Amino acid sequence: MIQGRTDLALELQEELQESEIDGIKIERKVDKNCGISQVKIVVETKEAEQIIGKPMGEYITLESETFLEEDDSYYEDMSEALHFVLRDFIKEEDRVLIVGLGNDKVTPDALGPLVVENIFITRHLKQYDLIKEDTIEMSGLVPGVMAQTGMEVVEIVRGVVKEAKPTKVVVIDALCARNSSRLNKTIQISNTGISPGSGVGNHRKAMNEETIGVPVIAIGVPTVISVPSIVRDSMEAIFKVVKESGGTSFTEIFTEEEKYQLAREVVDPGLVDMFVTPKNIDEAVRRISFTISEAINRYIPLSK
Amino acid sequence: MIQGRTDLALELQEELQESEIDGIKIERKVDKNCGISQVKIVVETKEAEQIIGKPMGEYITLESETFLEEDDSYYEDMSEALHFVLRDFIKEEDRVLIVGLGNDKVTPDALGPLVVENIFITRHLKQYDLIKEDTIEMSGLVPGVMAQTGMEVVEIVRGVVKEAKPTKVVVIDALCARNSSRLNKTIQISNTGISPGSGVGNHRKAMNEETIGVPVIAIGVPTVISVPSIVRDSMEAIFKVVKESGGTSFTEIFTEEEKYQLAREVVDPGLVDMFVTPKNIDEAVRRISFTISEAINRYIPLSK
Amino acid sequence: MIQGRTDLALELQEELQESEIDGIKIERKVDKNCGISQVKIVVETKEAEQIIGKPMGEYITLESETFLEEDDSYYEDMSEALHFVLRDFIKEEDRVLIVGLGNDKVTPDALGPLVVENIFITRHLKQYDLIKEDTIEMSGLVPGVMAQTGMEVVEIVRGVVKEAKPTKVVVIDALCARNSSRLNKTIQISNTGISPGSGVGNHRKAMNEETIGVPVIAIGVPTVISVPSIVRDSMEAIFKVVKESGGTSFTEIFTEEEKYQLAREVVDPGLVDMFVTPKNIDEAVRRISFTISEAINRYIPLSK
Amino acid sequence: MIQGRTDLALELQEELQESEIDGIKIERKVDKNCGISQVKIVVETKEAEQIIGKPMGEYITLESETFLEEDDSYYEDMSEALHFVLRDFIKEEDRVLIVGLGNDKVTPDALGPLVVENIFITRHLKQYDLIKEDTIEMSGLVPGVMAQTGMEVVEIVRGVVKEAKPTKVVVIDALCARNSSRLNKTIQISNTGISPGSGVGNHRKAMNEETIGVPVIAIGVPTVISVPSIVRDSMEAIFKVVKESGGTSFTEIFTEEEKYQLAREVVDPGLVDMFVTPKNIDEAVRRISFTISEAINRYIPLSK
Repeated sequence: MIQGRTDLALELQEELQESEIDGIKIERKVDKNCGISQVKIVVETKEAEQIIGKPMGEYITLESETFLEEDDSYYEDMSEALHFVLRDFIKEEDRVLIVGLGNDKVTPDALGPLVVENIFITRHLKQYDLIKEDTIEMSGLVPGVMAQTGMEVVEIVRGVVKEAKPTKVVVIDALCARNSSRLNKTIQISNTGISPGSGVGNHRKAMNEETIGVPVIAIGVPTVISVPSIVRDSMEAIFKVVKESGGTSFTEIFTEEEKYQLAREVVDPGLVDMFVTPKNIDEAVRRISFTISEAINRYIPLSK
Repeated sequence: MIQGRTDLALELQEELQESEIDGIKIERKVDKNCGISQVKIVVETKEAEQIIGKPMGEYITLESETFLEEDDSYYEDMSEALHFVLRDFIKEEDRVLIVGLGNDKVTPDALGPLVVENIFITRHLKQYDLIKEDTIEMSGLVPGVMAQTGMEVVEIVRGVVKEAKPTKVVVIDALCARNSSRLNKTIQISNTGISPGSGVGNHRKAMNEETIGVPVIAIGVPTVISVPSIVRDSMEAIFKVVKESGGTSFTEIFTEEEKYQLAREVVDPGLVDMFVTPKNIDEAVRRISFTISEAINRYIPLSK
Repeated sequence: MIQGRTDLALELQEELQESEIDGIKIERKVDKNCGISQVKIVVETKEAEQIIGKPMGEYITLESETFLEEDDSYYEDMSEALHFVLRDFIKEEDRVLIVGLGNDKVTPDALGPLVVENIFITRHLKQYDLIKEDTIEMSGLVPGVMAQTGMEVVEIVRGVVKEAKPTKVVVIDALCARNSSRLNKTIQISNTGISPGSGVGNHRKAMNEETIGVPVIAIGVPTVISVPSIVRDSMEAIFKVVKESGGTSFTEIFTEEEKYQLAREVVDPGLVDMFVTPKNIDEAVRRISFTISEAINRYIPLSK
Repeated sequence: MIQGRTDLALELQEELQESEIDGIKIERKVDKNCGISQVKIVVETKEAEQIIGKPMGEYITLESETFLEEDDSYYEDMSEALHFVLRDFIKEEDRVLIVGLGNDKVTPDALGPLVVENIFITRHLKQYDLIKEDTIEMSGLVPGVMAQTGMEVVEIVRGVVKEAKPTKVVVIDALCARNSSRLNKTIQISNTGISPGSGVGNHRKAMNEETIGVPVIAIGVPTVISVPSIVRDSMEAIFKVVKESGGTSFTEIFTEEEKYQLAREVVDPGLVDMFVTPKNIDEAVRRISFTISEAINRYIPLSK
């Protein structure tokens, strides 16, 4: 199974190059007013899980060309659309723990910590009766990354969940995309938690109901592209030029899978732990984090 | 019992104004080479605990007039002295979790988070066999403050301790002092953990062996002074002037305890949640954090 | 002349304890809808300048008890009120340089840098024709503090102004207040620039039309209180208690000026470079900075 | 002329694939004790300037495989080597302005601002006679990037230089490399200032004696790689595989220059403003910044 090139179920599905696969259901809709398109992919069977490389569950993708425009209203529509999707997974009576994954010192990875910084935290206010009784319970955690803590993130979150007893965990994470046009423009929501690093294999590090003890909703936005993705895309273009110059066609020689594998192999091993990110990433990450925190804060009437 | 004006056992003992108290043992020594003075206060009985307002255990205070001078060697001597004290509590075979308390967004409270940032974390390296087998296990955690997380810090730490199973927890915290001359110049180490907010009363929030499950060593440095402390000190001086001008003497009217209580009462309630801190606090906190992280990193030979 | 205890013209005027002073004009109004009160003090003569200790010019103070409530709309009303005041000083055809004073590493002093971070900068977009021609020109500068740069802030700003040629400079600064109830709740706007440290005396460091070459509008919010202010306020309260206990009355012995002078003198010299600030200062400063940046961004239609 | 793929004179020279070029002098030496290799390239003529694409002057490159190892002594040797090189350009009697270029909010670009943060600033201490008279004068500036300020960096620096009157400017900047093995391991020092974006063409933005008014020493460390560089390197490897599979050889079709041009063209335009950086960039940038600031602080005896 091909891995590591994207965290987006939507891109994995696009790569399958088949319009219909047993056990994978796809729904699309576009809100014509605000231009936000929504794609819902449901992975329904163990077989489909193997084919697409993502655990069984729902993957909703929101996309908007314009949501990062320089505009005071930039986040309004997207925040509302995201809030609407979240309502399927999180109810007012839930006790919610928002977990901001990533390294707050590395710009494209700081999305999760930034979101938690702007969440309206209520758990302590409820315990001390400082807020209306029926307000949703929100707590927040920024667990850091393994290089900073020496611990798996899942260990930290599981320990905190056992003590603080939320009914739902929401993890916010920066993702890796394959297509540069999706960078900072796409939000993926899923009810399957996250499987850091790779698809369905790595059970030990996964953060889901099985490992954490309560349902895990994941909100992710691609802020980086993997180096092999970029190499592969460029290869395609180069071979086209080569062919026109009288060389051999690329697609005549390699299958899709072989192409990505080749791209991985030819990339300098020193680049394996590198990522590609836009120059305006600071501004982009701040705006996206605000969009997500506002979508969550909409659960709390007084902060509307 | 008078509370809240200082987190330093040394200052509490000084206020007692009695040279000898049953159950409180004091040892003093000065290193003439480096000018670091060390005071060890041992609270040995439950009665002494009530008198001094600090739980039974050892409190070591290191003080140096010069350790924050602008000098590349600023931290060397103090780091070494601190490391030497820590060796009584933490052994090479321990598995240590360093917890950086405080709000990393508020300068004088960011001491703990800054220390963790510079600790040489080894736990994950040991698990993946990426470091010498006999290296001490170090992990790190920055739990945030209740306004950011909605959770008591002790809940977060206890949960993480249960999962990650350290044998010792070291908490780093910014403290409150009574005397401005101690600010940023004193390090207190104790084996009693910490009792946030106040003395021995507040069991629910205390972080010690009882609440966490493993011994808790606390390293603290006063970076702020409480407003009532400053008011009280100024009162003394003013009343002296008043007396010379023909008024009544302060000390003729009030006992020590009444003076502090009065200072608390007359302070504008809007100031209760305020703290006093020096203007160069950014520089001071960075230097102190480096002193502490280096003292801990001395456990790891390869980083020496 | 009494100095250093407040940067607010309003508080200086209140201390004068005279309802009318030649050369000082006062106008008050309250917007009943949003609860924002506005006081405009005009210092009209050189004599009045000496009496109040602030240079000739206009000082507008906006106050609102509620503008820092936890509410999505927290900044809306205050932003609009501030924008309305600014319109008297800055016109659409101006070329504006926003200068964020203060140390971005010390929380209560980071207000200016945070505002500049959120300003919609247009100067470069106009030069490269990337924005509508009639958009107001905005540039931004965070000059740092003398301990970081070794230079007077006025040197840096003057040099940049000569090169970049704005027609107006707006300096944003954290101020010192006397009254804790004004902290983080008051915005002062003036057309006299700023006189760091103290009143009208210190010409070398002042930032105004004379030293910079173009008119300087100052926007300031008190985020700290000086230690002597707190001591003085407490003294008053203590002496009341003392008198009731049979001692001498404070006001019988000292004049207003003497009281403040006394408070300065009795304060431990180690506290001279300290400030008092609330524990939630991180949250407060972020919210205020957003209020100010939005007020300025309202000049740019596309960001509305 | 080929541009944009590297800021390192050493890599430009390597690409020339000729052992000797008129007007370009190369000296190499290796310090066997500490393993630091030093290459000095002198561009002596206008013709050589055109060939190598770098202005006339000296380019010294320090490289060490080990200087970023996890070790307390990591910076010692490299700092000393860098200090030794700087001594050719900066004398004790100079008045030095250290300029930290880049965006402090984007990790790989924060190198310059981080260096300035740790420089021992003396200019104000000298002016107020708070330091020994013969101490070197150091001032510091973090001008920000155009998106934050709306101004060219050269405008800001020139304005400040005219006011503060240093005799030398040292600019610290994060660079772009071609070869991933040089990332975070190489320091380039030159006496030609910097030409942002590209080679010798872009006069308006260049920062050198001509545009600033005093000699400009540049210290740069590659922390990112350009996307076309990675694509080009991968192309080479892929074509090798293709050829072995019976396809046409790449090098048979294209010249070196054409290859890089092709790599640029085939890269998705959305990637033009992207950069490639390692995952541990936070740690790497902090260590390098410390290495550079210590090399500069060695001018000040009291901080040794």
